[in-house]
Amino acid sequence: MNSIEVCFSPELIHLHEVEGKIVVVVDIFRATSTMVAALASGVTEILPFADLEACRAMQAEGFLIGGERNGLTAPGFEMGNSPVAYLSGGYEGRRLAMTTTNGTQAIEKSKGAAEILIGAFPNLQATVSYIQGQHLDVLVHCAGWKGRFNLEDSLYAGALVKSLESTHKADEDGALAMKSLFEREGHQLKNYLSKASHAKRLQNHGIESDIDFCLTLDLYQDVVKVDDRGFLVRI
Amino acid sequence: MNSIEVCFSPELIHLHEVEGKIVVVVDIFRATSTMVAALASGVTEILPFADLEACRAMQAEGFLIGGERNGLTAPGFEMGNSPVAYLSGGYEGRRLAMTTTNGTQAIEKSKGAAEILIGAFPNLQATVSYIQGQHLDVLVHCAGWKGRFNLEDSLYAGALVKSLESTHKADEDGALAMKSLFEREGHQLKNYLSKASHAKRLQNHGIESDIDFCLTLDLYQDVVKVDDRGFLVRI
Repeated sequence: MNSIEVCFSPELIHLHEVEGKIVVVVDIFRATSTMVAALASGVTEILPFADLEACRAMQAEGFLIGGERNGLTAPGFEMGNSPVAYLSGGYEGRRLAMTTTNGTQAIEKSKGAAEILIGAFPNLQATVSYIQGQHLDVLVHCAGWKGRFNLEDSLYAGALVKSLESTHKADEDGALAMKSLFEREGHQLKNYLSKASHAKRLQNHGIESDIDFCLTLDLYQDVVKVDDRGFLVRI
Repeated sequence: MNSIEVCFSPELIHLHEVEGKIVVVVDIFRATSTMVAALASGVTEILPFADLEACRAMQAEGFLIGGERNGLTAPGFEMGNSPVAYLSGGYEGRRLAMTTTNGTQAIEKSKGAAEILIGAFPNLQATVSYIQGQHLDVLVHCAGWKGRFNLEDSLYAGALVKSLESTHKADEDGALAMKSLFEREGHQLKNYLSKASHAKRLQNHGIESDIDFCLTLDLYQDVVKVDDRGFLVRI
C-alpha cells in the first residue's frame, strides 16, 4: 500500500520529501480551479509564472495572459483568476500564461517530484483514478493563504485522503486530521467553506459564482499535470 | 467578543501577530505536559532553554536539569521529558532548567506577546477560566514536530477553541478547522491520538503511562505562565 501526507503551506514544504512522489498542488480559491476550468474549456496549455511582469511579457508571444494579486485582476491583464470566465467559451486553442498570489508559487516549490498534478474539486475523482493507476506515494501541497493554513485547500486534501483510502495509507498527522475533518464537514462543503476567511474575501469581491464553481465536485474527467517543460496540460 | 486563532508550527509563527495577545504554547507530547506536571508537583519555577549545553550548565547553579532530544533523556541529565516522573514527589522546592526538541523553541518564538501561557490537557479548564478573565485575543502556538503539523497539539488547540467559544470568536481558518476536528474526535481523545505519529514514536520508547497522562483532562487547577524573567511559574 502506498502512503499519503499533507503539507499545509509552501513555507513548510522543505520539511517534506517530494522526490519519488506524486505531488498534488491545490489552491481551491481559485488558481488550481481556474487552471482545471481553462484546460477543460479548450485552452491547450498553461505556463505558470510567479512573477507578474514575466507573465505579462508572454502576451507578445501570443499567449492569453491571466494575472491576479490579492483576489483582483492584475492591471492590464486579459484574464484575472476566475474559473467561470472560461466557461462561456472563446478560448479554444489558446495558450495561457498565468500568475497568482499563492498557487503558482506552490507549483514552483513542488519541483523535484516524480509528478506534479493540479488538484481541484471539479476534477477530484478523475485525479483519484489517475493516481490509483500510478502506484506512487502522494503528497498534497496546499498553497494556503500567504503562507498560512487555509480551510478550503486543507479540506480538498481531506477529500483526496478519504478518496484514496483503499490504496494510500494515511498515517501522517496532517493526512489523519484532514481525513477526519472531511468526514465531518464534507457532506456540506459549500455551507462549511462559506465560513472560510478566503471565501469571505472573495464574497467581498462579488464573485459568488466562482466560489460555487470551485466547490462543485466532478464536473470534468480531465487530469492536469505539469509536463517536462513546466507547462500545465491535460492527460 | 475576542478572537482566537491557531498557528500549527513555530516555522509559521512569523505569519501571525503575537503583540497584544495571549499566546498559549502547546507541546502535548511531552514538553508542556511535563512543565505543568512539574510545577503542580512542587517545582517552584522552570527556566526553558533551546540549547542543551546552556541547560546543562544550570546544574552548577543548583537547578534540577531536564533534557530531551528525539524523545530520549539527554546524556547526563537528571530528568528527561516525562511528566509521570514528577508525580512520585521528591522535587518540591526545586528549580528546574529544561530543554526539549520542540517545546522550548515555541516558547522562545512567542516572545513579544502580552502574555505566554503553557497549555496541556491536564490543566485545560484552568487555562480556559484564566483566559476568560483577561479579555485579550488568543493565539494557540503549536510546537509541532520538527516544524511540521502534529495531531496532538492541533487537537488541544481545537479543545481550547471549543472551550472558549462563548468568549472568543473562531473566524480564522486554523481555529475553525481544529474546532471541527475536536468536535468529531474529542470524545475519544486517547483512542484517536494513539494513531498520531508522535504517540507511535513514544510507544516505541515504552512510555505508555506518559501518553496516558498527557491526554488526561483537568487534573490540576494550576495555570502556568512565562513571567517577566522568562521563568515558567504557576499563577
